[in-house]
Amino acid sequence: MAIKTKAEYIEDLKAVRPDVYMLGEKVDRVWDDPRFQSTLNLIGATHDFSFDDEFKDRSVVHSPLVDEPVRRLNMHLQTSREDAVIKARLTREVTQRRICTWCQSNMVCMEWTATYDTDQQHGTEYHPRYQEFVKYLMRNDYDLAWAMMDPKGDRTVPPSKQKNLTGVKIIKKDAKGLVVRGCKVHTSYGPCIRELVVVPGRTLGRGDEDFAVSFAVPVDAPGLHLIARPAPGRSWPEADMECPIGSTLGAVEAMTVFEDVFVPWERVFLCGEVDMTGQVPHYFGRIQRQSKCACLAGHTDLVVGLAALVAEVNGLSMKTAHIREKLTRLMLHAETAYGCALGAAVDGETHPSGVYLPNGLIGNAGCHYIKTLVGDHIALLHDIAGGIIVTMPTERDYRNPKLKQWMDQYLGGNEKYTTEERLRVLHLIQEAAASRWTGYFMGWGISASGSPMTAEVAVRSEYDLDKRINIAKKWAKI
Amino acid sequence: MAIKTKAEYIEDLKAVRPDVYMLGEKVDRVWDDPRFQSTLNLIGATHDFSFDDEFKDRSVVHSPLVDEPVRRLNMHLQTSREDAVIKARLTREVTQRRICTWCQSNMVCMEWTATYDTDQQHGTEYHPRYQEFVKYLMRNDYDLAWAMMDPKGDRTVPPSKQKNLTGVKIIKKDAKGLVVRGCKVHTSYGPCIRELVVVPGRTLGRGDEDFAVSFAVPVDAPGLHLIARPAPGRSWPEADMECPIGSTLGAVEAMTVFEDVFVPWERVFLCGEVDMTGQVPHYFGRIQRQSKCACLAGHTDLVVGLAALVAEVNGLSMKTAHIREKLTRLMLHAETAYGCALGAAVDGETHPSGVYLPNGLIGNAGCHYIKTLVGDHIALLHDIAGGIIVTMPTERDYRNPKLKQWMDQYLGGNEKYTTEERLRVLHLIQEAAASRWTGYFMGWGISASGSPMTAEVAVRSEYDLDKRINIAKKWAKI
Amino acid sequence: MAIKTKAEYIEDLKAVRPDVYMLGEKVDRVWDDPRFQSTLNLIGATHDFSFDDEFKDRSVVHSPLVDEPVRRLNMHLQTSREDAVIKARLTREVTQRRICTWCQSNMVCMEWTATYDTDQQHGTEYHPRYQEFVKYLMRNDYDLAWAMMDPKGDRTVPPSKQKNLTGVKIIKKDAKGLVVRGCKVHTSYGPCIRELVVVPGRTLGRGDEDFAVSFAVPVDAPGLHLIARPAPGRSWPEADMECPIGSTLGAVEAMTVFEDVFVPWERVFLCGEVDMTGQVPHYFGRIQRQSKCACLAGHTDLVVGLAALVAEVNGLSMKTAHIREKLTRLMLHAETAYGCALGAAVDGETHPSGVYLPNGLIGNAGCHYIKTLVGDHIALLHDIAGGIIVTMPTERDYRNPKLKQWMDQYLGGNEKYTTEERLRVLHLIQEAAASRWTGYFMGWGISASGSPMTAEVAVRSEYDLDKRINIAKKWAKI
Amino acid sequence: MAIKTKAEYIEDLKAVRPDVYMLGEKVDRVWDDPRFQSTLNLIGATHDFSFDDEFKDRSVVHSPLVDEPVRRLNMHLQTSREDAVIKARLTREVTQRRICTWCQSNMVCMEWTATYDTDQQHGTEYHPRYQEFVKYLMRNDYDLAWAMMDPKGDRTVPPSKQKNLTGVKIIKKDAKGLVVRGCKVHTSYGPCIRELVVVPGRTLGRGDEDFAVSFAVPVDAPGLHLIARPAPGRSWPEADMECPIGSTLGAVEAMTVFEDVFVPWERVFLCGEVDMTGQVPHYFGRIQRQSKCACLAGHTDLVVGLAALVAEVNGLSMKTAHIREKLTRLMLHAETAYGCALGAAVDGETHPSGVYLPNGLIGNAGCHYIKTLVGDHIALLHDIAGGIIVTMPTERDYRNPKLKQWMDQYLGGNEKYTTEERLRVLHLIQEAAASRWTGYFMGWGISASGSPMTAEVAVRSEYDLDKRINIAKKWAKI
Repeated sequence: MAIKTKAEYIEDLKAVRPDVYMLGEKVDRVWDDPRFQSTLNLIGATHDFSFDDEFKDRSVVHSPLVDEPVRRLNMHLQTSREDAVIKARLTREVTQRRICTWCQSNMVCMEWTATYDTDQQHGTEYHPRYQEFVKYLMRNDYDLAWAMMDPKGDRTVPPSKQKNLTGVKIIKKDAKGLVVRGCKVHTSYGPCIRELVVVPGRTLGRGDEDFAVSFAVPVDAPGLHLIARPAPGRSWPEADMECPIGSTLGAVEAMTVFEDVFVPWERVFLCGEVDMTGQVPHYFGRIQRQSKCACLAGHTDLVVGLAALVAEVNGLSMKTAHIREKLTRLMLHAETAYGCALGAAVDGETHPSGVYLPNGLIGNAGCHYIKTLVGDHIALLHDIAGGIIVTMPTERDYRNPKLKQWMDQYLGGNEKYTTEERLRVLHLIQEAAASRWTGYFMGWGISASGSPMTAEVAVRSEYDLDKRINIAKKWAKI
Repeated sequence: MAIKTKAEYIEDLKAVRPDVYMLGEKVDRVWDDPRFQSTLNLIGATHDFSFDDEFKDRSVVHSPLVDEPVRRLNMHLQTSREDAVIKARLTREVTQRRICTWCQSNMVCMEWTATYDTDQQHGTEYHPRYQEFVKYLMRNDYDLAWAMMDPKGDRTVPPSKQKNLTGVKIIKKDAKGLVVRGCKVHTSYGPCIRELVVVPGRTLGRGDEDFAVSFAVPVDAPGLHLIARPAPGRSWPEADMECPIGSTLGAVEAMTVFEDVFVPWERVFLCGEVDMTGQVPHYFGRIQRQSKCACLAGHTDLVVGLAALVAEVNGLSMKTAHIREKLTRLMLHAETAYGCALGAAVDGETHPSGVYLPNGLIGNAGCHYIKTLVGDHIALLHDIAGGIIVTMPTERDYRNPKLKQWMDQYLGGNEKYTTEERLRVLHLIQEAAASRWTGYFMGWGISASGSPMTAEVAVRSEYDLDKRINIAKKWAKI
Repeated sequence: MAIKTKAEYIEDLKAVRPDVYMLGEKVDRVWDDPRFQSTLNLIGATHDFSFDDEFKDRSVVHSPLVDEPVRRLNMHLQTSREDAVIKARLTREVTQRRICTWCQSNMVCMEWTATYDTDQQHGTEYHPRYQEFVKYLMRNDYDLAWAMMDPKGDRTVPPSKQKNLTGVKIIKKDAKGLVVRGCKVHTSYGPCIRELVVVPGRTLGRGDEDFAVSFAVPVDAPGLHLIARPAPGRSWPEADMECPIGSTLGAVEAMTVFEDVFVPWERVFLCGEVDMTGQVPHYFGRIQRQSKCACLAGHTDLVVGLAALVAEVNGLSMKTAHIREKLTRLMLHAETAYGCALGAAVDGETHPSGVYLPNGLIGNAGCHYIKTLVGDHIALLHDIAGGIIVTMPTERDYRNPKLKQWMDQYLGGNEKYTTEERLRVLHLIQEAAASRWTGYFMGWGISASGSPMTAEVAVRSEYDLDKRINIAKKWAKI
Repeated sequence: MAIKTKAEYIEDLKAVRPDVYMLGEKVDRVWDDPRFQSTLNLIGATHDFSFDDEFKDRSVVHSPLVDEPVRRLNMHLQTSREDAVIKARLTREVTQRRICTWCQSNMVCMEWTATYDTDQQHGTEYHPRYQEFVKYLMRNDYDLAWAMMDPKGDRTVPPSKQKNLTGVKIIKKDAKGLVVRGCKVHTSYGPCIRELVVVPGRTLGRGDEDFAVSFAVPVDAPGLHLIARPAPGRSWPEADMECPIGSTLGAVEAMTVFEDVFVPWERVFLCGEVDMTGQVPHYFGRIQRQSKCACLAGHTDLVVGLAALVAEVNGLSMKTAHIREKLTRLMLHAETAYGCALGAAVDGETHPSGVYLPNGLIGNAGCHYIKTLVGDHIALLHDIAGGIIVTMPTERDYRNPKLKQWMDQYLGGNEKYTTEERLRVLHLIQEAAASRWTGYFMGWGISASGSPMTAEVAVRSEYDLDKRINIAKKWAKI
C-alpha cells in the first residue's frame, strides 16, 4: 500500500531542497537539523499512526479515488456522517496524546468542494485538475502544507488597494501557467512537507481578481522561500526533564514568500474568479471547526491528566473538594466540546461534490465555547500545581550531585512518588503552563482554525433568528 | 390508528375520578376546572402534534410492539441512534414553541431497560409484565405520570431508618399483589393523566427492601391522593396580554400520597430487589439528560426570540453592538446545548433489551452547561427589555379608556409597531422574566431532569480519569 | 427634631389627594388601600430607622443646612469621604434586611450639584431655589419621588422630533412659572410620597430646549396623574407563609402623567439650558452607582442567608462540598461589590458645591460586576432549594387539616426543624426565586440605577486608555 | 537621608558573598552576572523610585521609628487607613509600569504585628528585637528577602512527622543563639538581597515546637545556600525586540537551604511558641492580599495597554465592537480589583502594635476575583493579537537584510506604524502571552500572595454567615 512510515516520510524530504531560513540563517538540510526534529516527529507520527495496532482499523481507510488505503486524518475525503464521526473520535484520541493530528484531510475536502463549486459556476476545469492532484498526494502519501492566511496589511482596504502587496497575486499568465508573487503567513509545518497548497484567505470583491488564486506547488519551487520559526523546545541541550513535550513534538511555523513563482496550469485551482474566493473560508468554517471541537476536547483531556497528576504528586486528589471541583470542571469542558464535534457531524449534509459537510452552527458554537476556556485551563494548571512551577531549581541544578542531594531531601511530596518523579511532573507542568511551549499550546487553542470571534460571526450568520422572532410574535399576538 | 386527538384525550379523562386537591379543596371535575386548562392544553398539544402537517412525518412513528403508529416523544421505544437524533431535533422544535414535549417516551424506555436488567439478574418476570403495560398504554394512547422523586426527609438516613415514612413502602404482599403506603413529590401533570408509574428515585441498600418497589396504577386507584399546585396563569380573569404563555400552557404539579394503595402483581415491576434500585436513576441520567439538552436548547431559542423582539419594539436591533453580542451569546448557548444532545445521540449504545442508550458523559456535560446558564437568560431579558417590565401600568389600566389614551401616547417605541403591540411584547417579557411563570421556567431549566450537581457527578463518575493520568505520566516519564 | 416616625409619615399622606390609579381604577385613599401597605411599610421603615437603637447613631445625622438632625440615607447632603463610607455601610445593613433604603439622599445631592453647575455656567439662580426646597424637605421630613426616566419613544430621534410627545415638555412660560406636559416612567414609590422632583433623563442637544426642564411639584398638583403598578404581594388574602417579604415590603411603581401642570418659578431648577441636561445623569453615575454596589452587596447577603437556610432545612450545610462552594461564591460576590462601594468612596473628590462625589470608575465597575450576577443568584436558589419550590402544595393546602396531616408526615427534612418550619422556608425561597416578587428583585438588581451596559459605558469613557497605551509603547520602544 | 539609589544598592551587594547556584553552577559575583541584571534592575527601581519627580512625594515617607525618610512600599510601617490607601494607589501605578513593587513593607508589618502578639501572649521579647532589626534595615536601606513558604512534603502529616525534613527546624539552642536546618522555597529576589527573614508558613500544632521559628540572617550567613532559578529573559544575546520586558526586569527565584545556620538571639523572633505560628499567615491574608488587589489591577492595566496597542498596529481599535467589548471587560476587571484594594483599606482596623490591618473579607474577595481572571487576560492577548505571535519570523530573521526586506514588505499593518513598529509590538505581545515570561506573569498573578483557594477559605471563615441565616429565619418566621 501507499502509506509511508515516518522513516519513509523523512526519506522523501531528502529529495527536495526548499529555501528555508531559521533564526536569520539558511537551513540546508532540514531533515538533519535538530531544530526540525520535533516537527518531523509530529508529522512522522501521523504516518506511523497507520501502523499502530490499537488504531489502525480506523486510522487507515480505503480511498475509492485511488483504490488504496490512505491515512484517514491526513488524506481521506470525508463523504459521510460516519466519516465525520470517526474523524472526531480519532482526533480526540490523538490530540490528548500528541497534540496535533495534522488534519490535512479537512483541507483536502475544502478545496475539493470549492473547486467543484467553481466549475459549476464558471464552467472551468479546476475540479478534475484538483482530483488529479489529490490522487498524486494519495499515491505518494505526500503531506501538504496549507497556505491560506494572508498577512492582513491595512484591514480596511482590499488587496488591490494596499500600499504594499499583501497576499498572493497573479503577476503573469501565459499558455504554460501563472507566475505569482506575494506572501502567506502561518504556514504550519511548511518546511517539513513536500507540497504546498495556496488558497484564498478571505472573500474578495470585484477589482481583486488578481488575488483570486489557488494552486499547488512543490515546496522547493523556484522563488519559494520559507522563513521558519523554531518550535519551542529545549532551552539547553540536555533538557530531558524540563521540556518533555517540546523536545519530542513541535510545529515549525513559517512565513512563506512567493518571489515570482511559476505554477503550471495543471496545478491551478482558481484564477480570477473573485466570486468564488469565499468558498474555502466558508467550508473551512464547517469542516475545520468540527474537527477543532474534537481537537480541543483532546487538549482539555491532556490538561485533565496533567492537573490530576500534579495534584497527586503534591499529595492531593479527587478526594480534596476543590481539586475535585476543578478537575470536574475540566472534564465538563472536554465532554461539551466533544459533544459539539459529534453533534456537528450528525446534523450535516452532503455537498454535490460528494464531501460531507458537518453542521456549521454547532461546530462553530462548540469551537467558541472551548476556545474561550483555553486561558482558564492554563490558569488551572498554575492554580493546582502551585507557584513552584515558576520558582523551582532547574534540571541542571538537579544534575549537580551536591544540589541534587538537597533537592531530593527537601522537594518530595506524596510519598508514593520519588522526589525525582515529583520533579519530573512539576517540570512537565512548567512546560505546559509556564514556558514558551505554553504560548504555542494557547495559540493552537485560541487562534488556530479561527479566532473565537470568527466562530461567533459564523453562528450569528447561520442562526435562524427570524424563526424565533416569529415564535415570540405569536406569543405576543402581534 | 390508536393515536388520540386532544379532544379524545380529554374525553378519556372524564372516565376517571382521581382524588385531586387544589388550594386546599377537593376538585371534582378536573377537565372542567379552569385552573387545569393550561395543563390540558399542554398534554393535548402532544396529541395534536401527531396531526400537525409540518411535523407528523416525525412526530408519529410506527411501533413494532403493537404494530401501530404511536406518538414518538410520548410513547416510542427508542431503539437506534437515529431515534435518539430525531427525538433531539423534534424536542428542540417543540420546546422553543410550547415549552414542554412531555417526554414520557424516555420514561417508557428507562423502565423497559430496568425491568430487563432485573429479570436477567434475578430471574424475575417484570419485563414481560412491563411489556404488556406498555402495549396497554400504546393501544389506548394513555399518557403516564412519572412518580420518581421521593420527599427527601433526613438525607443522611436511609428510608428504613427515617423517623417519618418517606418514599413509597410495601406494607403488605399477598397472592393478588401489593399494598403500598407513602408519598412521591414532583408528579408533573399527574392530575391530568390516566396512569401513574412509580419507580425508585435513588439507589437503596440492604435493609431497604420494602422501599425497592416499582409499579403502575390508574390515577384513580383507591387510596391515591394528589395535592395539585396550580400552574402559573392569569392573575385576574381578563388577563389576555399579561400572561399569554401561562394562560395557554402550564403544568399542574402534584404531591402524590399513597394511602395503602393496592397494586395487582401484573402491574408490579420491582419488589424488594434493592440491588436494582439504581437502574432507573442510572438510565435516567443517560436517556433523559440527552433530551434535556435539546429541550433547553429550545428554551434558549425561545429566549432568543423574546429578547430580539423586545429589542426591536424598543427600537434596537442586531445592529446595536451590545444587543448583537447578547443575542449571539444566547445563540451560542442554544447551539452548544443542542450539539451535546446530538453528540450524546451519536456515541451511545444499544442495551440488550433493545433500548438505545445515549452517551452519558456528553448528555450530562451538555445539561450541566445549559442548566447553569438559565439564570443568565432571565437576567438578559431584564437587561434588554429594561426596568419597564416591572414598572409599567397593568393590562387593566390599558382597558380604562382614559388611561389607555395616555399610555398610547407616551409608551410607544419603535415606530414600526403600535403602542399596543409594544405593550403586548413588554407584557410577554414580563411574564417570561418577572412573573410567577418565570419561576416555573427556571425550575424546568434548573431542577427538572436533575440538578446541575447531578450532572456533574455523573460526568465525574464516567470520565476515564486514569487514562488521562497515564498519558501525563508517560510525558513525565514516570 | 424634624424626623418623623412612620406613623407621622402616613399622617402627612392623608393631607394630600393625588390622582392615583391602580388596575384601571381610581384610588381615593392611598393610605387606606391594602395594596399600598407594603410600600407604606417600606418608606415608613426609613423613618423608623432613625429611632432604631442599633443604628440611630449612624442613621441620623445633623444637617448644617437646617441645623437639625435628618435621616442620613434619605435627606443628608453627602459632603465628605466619610459620608460616602458610612452611607455604603448602612446601605448594605439595610438592604440585606429590608431590600431598599429609598436612597433619596443621593437624588438630593445630584440635583444640588447640577443646579450649582448651571448657575455657574449661566448665571441663573436655580441653586439657591433648590437649597430652599431642600430645607423645606428637611424641615418637614418629606420624602421625594424621583421622576427622571423618560419613556424612550423612538430612540434614534431627539425629543423635539418624536412623532408623539415623550418626556416632559415646557408648553408655557410666564411671570408666575411654567406649564409642563408629558410623562415620566419608573416613578418608584410616587403615590406614597409628598413631593415629586423631575429631572432630565439624558443629555439633550440644541433644539430640545423645551425638554430641558427640572422642577419640583407636590404629588397632588393639578394635572398630575399617577398610574400605579401594584407591588407583588399576596395571591390570596391569608397568604402568610407564601409571600412573607412581599406582604410586608414592596414598591408601588408608577407612570406619571403631566397634563399641563403648573410649576411656580421658585420650584423650577432648570429651564431651557440644554447644555446642562447631562449633569444629573453624570452625577447619577457617580453618586448612585456607588450606593448601588452596597445595595446589591446587601441583596447578595440576603441570598446567602436564604440559600444557607434552605440548605439547612433540607439537611445540607457548609460541610457539603458543593453547598459550601456555592455559598462561598455568593459571599465573594457580596464582598467584592461592597469593596467597590467603599473603594469608590475613597477615591472621590469634593465638588465646588460641597457635595462629595465618589469615584465613577470603581462605582460603575462594581455595579457592572454585581448586576451581571443577579440572574445567577436566583438560579442558585433554585439549585440549592430544589424543584420543590415550584411543585409543592400551597399554603391553603396546609390549612386543610387532612392535607396538613399528609404534608406534615411526608415533607419534613432536617430533623432539627419541624415540617412547618421547613415549609415556611421553602415558601420563602419560592417567593424569592419563583414568584412575581422575583421579577421585582431582579429588576431592582439589574435595571434600577442603570443597566449593566450603562455602567460599562461609564467605565469605558472614564478609563485612561491612552496612559496604558503609552506604557505599552514604551515597552515596545516605539 | 538613608534611602539609597540603585547604584548604592548594587554597591551594597558587593560587600557580601552569598552561596548562590544557578543552572547547576556556583555564581561568584551576582552583581556581575548578566543573568541577575534584570533582578537588580527591578530591585534597583524600587530605590530609584524615591528620586522620581512624579512620585517621590508619595514613594518616600518619613519613618518616626528612625526619624528619617524611607521607601514607602519597601520599608514603611503602615499605621493608618491613609497609609493603606496610598499604598494601594502607588502599587497600581508601579505594577502597571514595571510589574512588581517588591512590597516588602507588608512583610515588615506582618512580622511587627506577629512579634507583638507573641510577646503579649508569652511575655517574650521578640518585638523589641524585631524593632531593632527594622531600624537596622531602615537606616541601611537594606532590602529583605522573605522566606515563608515551606516545601510541602506530605501534606497530610505535620513537619515533625515527615519522613524527610521539610521546613526549617531548630536543631540546637544555646546561650548565643540557635542553629537551624532545613529549607524554604519561593525566595523571590533572595540572591540579590542582603537580609533574609524566615517566618512560619502555616499554623503548627503541639509537637512541632522545633519548627516554630522565625529569625533574620544576612544572605551570606555560613551554611545558607541559594539555588537560583533564572528569570525569563533573552533567548539569544541580541534579543532586543523579542523580550523587552524580561531583558529589563525580572525576578530570580530561589530555593533556600539552611545547612546548620547559626542565628544569634538578637535576630530570633519566634522560637518554639507553636500557638503563634498562625499569626504571620493570618496577617499575610489581611495586609498582603489588599496590596495584591492593587498589584493585579496594575497588571490588568498593563494588559489593557498591550491589547489596545496590538489592536491598533493591526488596524483595529475601540471603534471595532468586539475589540471595544474586550478592552472594556479588561478595564472593568482592573477597576473592580482596585476598588477592593481601596475598599479593604477603608474597612480595616489598627492593631495594638500600631500596624493598620486592612479588611480581610474585601481584600481576599478582590484577590480571588482578579486571580481567577489571569488566564483569561493572557487568552485575550492571543485573541486580539492573533496567531501571528506564535508563527512570525524571529528577530534574528529581521536582522538578515534579505529576510528583512520581505518582512518589511509583507508584515505591515496599520499604516500609521512602520512594519518594524508593528513587529516590535507583536514581539512584545509574544513575550507577554506566549513566552517563558508569560509563565512568570501568570505565577505572579495566580500563585503569588496565595492561591485563589486560600482567598476563598479566608472569606468563608470571616464572613458572618449566622447573621444572614438569622435574617432569613426572621423572614420565614421561624
